[in-house]
Amino acid sequence: MLAHVYIEDLHRHVGEEVTLKGWIYGKRSSGKLHFLQVRDGTGIVQCVASKADLGDEPFARADKLAHETSLTIDGTVREDKRSPLGVELHVKGFTVFAEPTREYPISPKDHGTAFLMDNRHLWLRSKRQVAILRIRAEIIKAIRNYFDSRGFTLLDAPIFTPAACEGTSSLFEVNYFDDKAYLTQSGQLYGEAGAMALGKVYVFGPTFRAEKSKTRRHLTEFWMVEPEVAWLDLDGDMDLAEDLLVEVVAQVLKNRRAELQIIERDLTKLENVKKPFPRIRYEEAIALLQRKGKDCKFGDDFGADEETAISEEFDRPVMIHRYPSSIKSFYMKRDPEDPRTALCVDVIAPEGYGEIIGGSQREDDLALLEARLDEHKLPRESFEWYLDLRRYGSVPHAGFGLGVERTVAWLCGLHHVRETIPFPRMMEKITP
Amino acid sequence: MLAHVYIEDLHRHVGEEVTLKGWIYGKRSSGKLHFLQVRDGTGIVQCVASKADLGDEPFARADKLAHETSLTIDGTVREDKRSPLGVELHVKGFTVFAEPTREYPISPKDHGTAFLMDNRHLWLRSKRQVAILRIRAEIIKAIRNYFDSRGFTLLDAPIFTPAACEGTSSLFEVNYFDDKAYLTQSGQLYGEAGAMALGKVYVFGPTFRAEKSKTRRHLTEFWMVEPEVAWLDLDGDMDLAEDLLVEVVAQVLKNRRAELQIIERDLTKLENVKKPFPRIRYEEAIALLQRKGKDCKFGDDFGADEETAISEEFDRPVMIHRYPSSIKSFYMKRDPEDPRTALCVDVIAPEGYGEIIGGSQREDDLALLEARLDEHKLPRESFEWYLDLRRYGSVPHAGFGLGVERTVAWLCGLHHVRETIPFPRMMEKITP
Repeated sequence: MLAHVYIEDLHRHVGEEVTLKGWIYGKRSSGKLHFLQVRDGTGIVQCVASKADLGDEPFARADKLAHETSLTIDGTVREDKRSPLGVELHVKGFTVFAEPTREYPISPKDHGTAFLMDNRHLWLRSKRQVAILRIRAEIIKAIRNYFDSRGFTLLDAPIFTPAACEGTSSLFEVNYFDDKAYLTQSGQLYGEAGAMALGKVYVFGPTFRAEKSKTRRHLTEFWMVEPEVAWLDLDGDMDLAEDLLVEVVAQVLKNRRAELQIIERDLTKLENVKKPFPRIRYEEAIALLQRKGKDCKFGDDFGADEETAISEEFDRPVMIHRYPSSIKSFYMKRDPEDPRTALCVDVIAPEGYGEIIGGSQREDDLALLEARLDEHKLPRESFEWYLDLRRYGSVPHAGFGLGVERTVAWLCGLHHVRETIPFPRMMEKITP
Repeated sequence: MLAHVYIEDLHRHVGEEVTLKGWIYGKRSSGKLHFLQVRDGTGIVQCVASKADLGDEPFARADKLAHETSLTIDGTVREDKRSPLGVELHVKGFTVFAEPTREYPISPKDHGTAFLMDNRHLWLRSKRQVAILRIRAEIIKAIRNYFDSRGFTLLDAPIFTPAACEGTSSLFEVNYFDDKAYLTQSGQLYGEAGAMALGKVYVFGPTFRAEKSKTRRHLTEFWMVEPEVAWLDLDGDMDLAEDLLVEVVAQVLKNRRAELQIIERDLTKLENVKKPFPRIRYEEAIALLQRKGKDCKFGDDFGADEETAISEEFDRPVMIHRYPSSIKSFYMKRDPEDPRTALCVDVIAPEGYGEIIGGSQREDDLALLEARLDEHKLPRESFEWYLDLRRYGSVPHAGFGLGVERTVAWLCGLHHVRETIPFPRMMEKITP
C-alpha cells in the first residue's frame, strides 16, 4: 500500500508513487487524456489519466466520474510549473468509494445567496470557502500565538451569565432549570477578575447579541478575543492593539498567501498594515467628518457610514480615542484632563470594514464606579463581585475586544460577514 | 523610570534594579527586616525591606501593608538559592496604589467550599488557583498546537442549533427572537461537514448539557475539543487520541512543572502516560469488572464506579472499544464483524478520573444512517443536511471529543471539576 499524501504536501514527493484520497472537483478531457481536478481539503490537484496507464474500462469510467465522487487515486507525482502547486499526478489506478446518489446541487454557475446559505454544509467545499476557512483558522492561530508567547494566560469566561454587562435589550435569555440565565455579550468583566489574579489574560470565546439588525456586519453569534492587563493604561492598550494587528496580518500574509490569492484579495492593501497606526482624538474625527460634509457634532456616535468615511482617509487601521463618556460603557475611566471624555479607543479597519476593536482603560476607583452603575441604572447587587475588584487592591488596567468575524471579513475582503464563519447565525437563520 | 519586570522573568535580571507591580500576598518581620510576599499573577517573590534602605517612615509603613494591597516596588534582584524562583528582591522603595477598603475575606485558614465559590473572583488569586489556571491554559495551548501543527483546520461549530444531536432531555432552550434555539451539546455533526470540506478539522468550543446531576464530574457548561478526519477508521482514531494525550501530558510536564509542584501533583503518575495505551474490547472490560466482583453484563453502560474500577488496573489511560451499539449514538458505524457492537472508543483516564474521550468511526452509508435515525426516533427533516454528507461523496471518517475540564482535573489531580475552569457553571450556581 502506498503512503497517503495530502495535496498540500505533494510537492515534497516529486517522482514518488503516492495515494491521494479526495473528491472529484472538476474534469475535462482531450479524448486521449482525462484531466481530473481532485480536492482533499488541503488543495486541488490535476490528475492526468491516460488509456495506456489505466486500461480501457477504467479509462472510460474516469470520464464519467461525477462531481463530489469520493475516491482514492494511486499515481506518480510529477513537477508541473503551470500548476499553482507546482505538481500534478499521473494516475496509475483509482478506486471509487462512493458516487453521489443525486446530482450535486452546487455547480460552477451562479447561485443565489439564499440557496448557498441553505446548503452551507456543501458550499463549504468550494475552493473559495475552503480558502476563507483556512484564513480564518490562521487568524485565530496568530491571535492565540501572539498572546501565548507574551506571557498572557488564556482565561475562559463563562457563557452563562446572571446579568447583563451593558443593558438587557440585546440579551439572549436561556431557561436555566427553574431559573433564567443570559448568554454572554462579552467576557470582559470576568477578564478583569482574571487580570487581578494572573496579571495578563485573554478571553477567547463566542459571544451573543440579540440585535434585531440584518446588516452585513451583524451575526447573533460571533467570536471575540479580549485581552485584559493589570497595570496598563490607555496608551499601552493602544500599543497592544496595534502590535497584535500588525503581527496577525503579517502571519496571515506569510502562511496563507496562496489562499488570499485564491479569493483575489488585494495584497498591497494588507501589506500597508504597519506601525505606526494613526491615533486621532474623537474630536479630530468629528472635524474630519465635518470637512467631508457629514452632519455630526460632539456627542454623536459613529455608524457604518461615518466609519467608512473615516477609513477612506487612511491606508491602515486608524485608532480613534477619547469618545464622549456619555456614549460609552459604564466601566470606562474618564479622562482626568477632560472628564467629558472616556479613556477609550476604537480601531476602525481600512477599506470600509468598520470597527474591529473597542477598548478602554477601566475605572479603577470604587466610588466613581459605583456612581457610574447608578447613572446607567444598572442593578448594584449584580455587580458586587465586580466592585470587589476595586475594593481589594484596585490597580490601573485596560483591555479591548477584537471581533474575529469582522477581522476575517477585512483580511479576506468580504462584503458580508456570513462567509467568515462556517455556520453563521443571524436573526432569521440558524440552519443548517 | 526602571523597567517593569514580571516575577516569572526576574531570574533573567539578577543584579539589576527593576520595578515590580503586584499585590501583597503575605508578610513577616524579624524586626530589622520585613519580608513581603508579593504576587503579580506570574509568580510570588519575597521582597526584603530594611530600615537602612527605606528610611524610618516607609519601613514602618511596609510593616502595615495589608493583604491584597496593590503597589509598585523598586528594588534590586538578588540570587537566592532557597527560593523556588532562585531570586528575591531587595527593596529600594515602594508606592502603594490602593489599599483594600475592607479586610480581604480569604485568609490562609480553611474556608468552606460554598464560601470560596461565592468569592470565586477573589479565590482565583490564590497560589493554588493561579497554578491550576496556568495549567489549564497550557493544556489548551498544547491541544491546539497539536492539531495546528498536523494539518488540521480549526472549525468553529455553531453554538445555536435548531435541533438536538442526541435527544432533547438535556438541552438548554434559548428564546431566539420569535422562535426557539438550543445550545450545542457537541460540534461533531458540523465537524463532519467540515471534514468533508477541509479533510482534517477540529472543533473547539464550549458545549452545554442541562443534566440534573450534581456530581463532582458535571458542569452545565464545559469546553470540548472534537477532531474529525475524513478517510479515518477506528484504529486510526484510537492512534490519534493516544498520540494527542501523550503529547499534551508531555508538554504540560515540560512547561508547567513548577505549577504542578505547587498543587502537589504526583508527577510519577503523569510520567507514566506513554504509548502504547492498553486497548481492550468492551467485552474484555465486562469480564474484568466481573472478576473484580462487579455485577455487570453485555449491554450495560459504565458509570463512574465501573470507570474507576477499570482504571485501577492500568497505570495509564485505557481505551475501551466496540461497545454495544444499543447504548451508543445513532451516528456510530456498526462493526461489520459483530453488528451488535459499534466502532467506537471511550478513553478512561487513570486514577479514577473517568471518561475523558468518547469517539467513533461514523456511519458512512446513507441507508443505514437513515435507519438509525428512525430507530432513535430522531426527526428526519432536522438531519437532511447531515444525510447530504452521505449523499454527496460519502467517505469513511472518524473523530472524538475530549472534555477539557475532565482532562484538567486528571492532570491537576483535582477531586472536583469546579476548580478546573475560572467560573464554573453548575445546576445551582451561575454566579459570580
